[in-house]
Amino acid sequence: MLGTFSYCNPTKLYFGEGAVRSLAGELAKYGKNVVLVYGGGSIKRNGIYDEVVGILRECGKNVAEIAGVMPNPTLDKLYEGMKIAREHNADLLLAVGGGSVCDYTKALSVSVYCEEDPWEKYYLRFEEPTCRTLPVGCVLTMVGTGSEMNAGAVITNTHTKLKIGHVFEDESIMPRFSVLDPKYTLTLPHYQMVAGIYDIFSHICEQYFSGEDDNTSDYLSEGLMRSLLVSSRIANKDMQNYEARSNIMWTATWALNTLVACGKSTDWEVHMLGQAVGAHTDATHGMTLAAVSLPYYRHILPYGLKKFVRFAQNVWGVDRAGKTDEAVAEEGLQAMEAWMKELGLVLHISELGVTEDMIEAVADSTLVMEGGYKVLTREEIVSILKESL
Amino acid sequence: MLGTFSYCNPTKLYFGEGAVRSLAGELAKYGKNVVLVYGGGSIKRNGIYDEVVGILRECGKNVAEIAGVMPNPTLDKLYEGMKIAREHNADLLLAVGGGSVCDYTKALSVSVYCEEDPWEKYYLRFEEPTCRTLPVGCVLTMVGTGSEMNAGAVITNTHTKLKIGHVFEDESIMPRFSVLDPKYTLTLPHYQMVAGIYDIFSHICEQYFSGEDDNTSDYLSEGLMRSLLVSSRIANKDMQNYEARSNIMWTATWALNTLVACGKSTDWEVHMLGQAVGAHTDATHGMTLAAVSLPYYRHILPYGLKKFVRFAQNVWGVDRAGKTDEAVAEEGLQAMEAWMKELGLVLHISELGVTEDMIEAVADSTLVMEGGYKVLTREEIVSILKESL
Repeated sequence: MLGTFSYCNPTKLYFGEGAVRSLAGELAKYGKNVVLVYGGGSIKRNGIYDEVVGILRECGKNVAEIAGVMPNPTLDKLYEGMKIAREHNADLLLAVGGGSVCDYTKALSVSVYCEEDPWEKYYLRFEEPTCRTLPVGCVLTMVGTGSEMNAGAVITNTHTKLKIGHVFEDESIMPRFSVLDPKYTLTLPHYQMVAGIYDIFSHICEQYFSGEDDNTSDYLSEGLMRSLLVSSRIANKDMQNYEARSNIMWTATWALNTLVACGKSTDWEVHMLGQAVGAHTDATHGMTLAAVSLPYYRHILPYGLKKFVRFAQNVWGVDRAGKTDEAVAEEGLQAMEAWMKELGLVLHISELGVTEDMIEAVADSTLVMEGGYKVLTREEIVSILKESL
Repeated sequence: MLGTFSYCNPTKLYFGEGAVRSLAGELAKYGKNVVLVYGGGSIKRNGIYDEVVGILRECGKNVAEIAGVMPNPTLDKLYEGMKIAREHNADLLLAVGGGSVCDYTKALSVSVYCEEDPWEKYYLRFEEPTCRTLPVGCVLTMVGTGSEMNAGAVITNTHTKLKIGHVFEDESIMPRFSVLDPKYTLTLPHYQMVAGIYDIFSHICEQYFSGEDDNTSDYLSEGLMRSLLVSSRIANKDMQNYEARSNIMWTATWALNTLVACGKSTDWEVHMLGQAVGAHTDATHGMTLAAVSLPYYRHILPYGLKKFVRFAQNVWGVDRAGKTDEAVAEEGLQAMEAWMKELGLVLHISELGVTEDMIEAVADSTLVMEGGYKVLTREEIVSILKESL
């Protein structure tokens, strides 16, 4: 049954080759002080920086920059950005990059005028902003997080080794606009591309593997997964395939903009495990998810058998005839494992820098979610992490 | 390939039992003059009118009414409403009803301050509004049209026998908010329920049966269709099944809020045929679509064979093994026909009041679309209408 919920997602998306040409029209809606936010500098090498700065200049904007936003944006970096945005009296925060840069920019939006420490308010007490927030726009250059059309913002506190995401309730925290040009993603290394693909897949799975109801949201999830499987296999063999990359980009947006969670419960334990690995290793986000997923799903399978059977049939095309439910469900996970190997995803956290003596500490950093088929005990978390080694 | 497009849909949806309680919060955002728009009075019998009027009163609103909006809202009724809204100096137009009432209210929104005749500007020249427009809110009581989350508005000119829909480009024409309570739909007669279900199905089909690309939008469409088939069969046997009715309501919204058309071409010829039948008979919209669909799809099947094969497999679960593409495609349409008969849909336009001597006139009212697998000639339209008799 679809429960009671509200849905609103006002982000304006400009999709396709050359979509950045829409930027000028959007910039005209805001004041002249823009803070440009980006990461490690790849946008300078591939020309996107010059393109965006050129448009900002033509629009007569007064631009300050926050450069060097890292793959797991830190609280210290947030403090640094708050100072820059305040001094610049920013009218608009413009993120140019992947999910990390978009996440960081949304965290900045609610923090610049925050009356107290944003970590305490937003990431420990999970409160909504009560201060003036700044509008955010995104030019997306990497695919996976869905951050371009949601109100989520993950920040890592390197002092306490906690990587925490907050999905704000207020839709005004969502980007006002996002530019999605699949061409911008074509220069990404294979490792980053497939990590992003798995991040997308995991977003869908973690909303799908929860609840017993036969509702529309799960059918939409199956559609997104089926599309992603086809596109990812094409892109894996031919990274320059624009058609496949455009479908991957679009799937990513809809995998995590709240649609497929509407009216249903969700899990998110794989993200909690992966984020704990990320906080201890600074590994690529999507790979941390890939490395813990199969041990996690095999662990919870007996508690959510019916959904795993449905997953096997509707997503992986497993034929049910003459098989037990358990066999059908396991066949689905085997098909998923084969696909993960085909893409070259990391299947062991040891490859990401986790050693056996770190397991207890990673378990300490793993938040326990309550929406999945089994609420994990501390022992189960340790056991799943050991299985993932 | 997903083409270049923009997407923005800012309508705030309140979904689920008791969702009308969110109305007060939304009403607070607008001035005190509200025009309440509704249809034939069923909302007075089932208590929804009293509930909404009670909330308007508690919120201190000054309410004028436009009652008697008909299933196919007429241009004359639009003129009448324009006068009422102008005299009342409306700050908000609140539609309480099904798709016809929502459509009418959006048409009103762009017409009240229109500098010239709205029929000429919006329905003959398909222009965008250049005047002040009025915000629209919806409380949905019937399911099918998706009008609660899009910028479309169909109006019928009874003088020229033309029923024309205009989907406005500006997202500010979309309802600002819509209340979707599946309970409100439980009092609907079976005939209206299944007509709405087919309207939803047709919306998805008419976007799906266009283009050759393997894109995410079509996978989302398949997910929606699969969900609808399951829910419609449950609701057909048990009209009071809240779970099924809630999934149908949610599917309807996403079937026609532009999502599944993103980046692809669309057809809409079934709607053109059905609307022509509607303009000549005033028959229930969904039934006009049902009655022309199978002859239309069987006619275009050879031109879009690949998509019809995919439809048969992915939506109807037809096994392809050992069959020709033509046989698989036809088996899909047979499964669709069986489902339509199971629901009790009207399969012949003669049952809706069309007689053989009216065929030429109905053909005259049928607009020809260019996005489908075959652009119809006048002869083909006549032939499909005769097949539909």
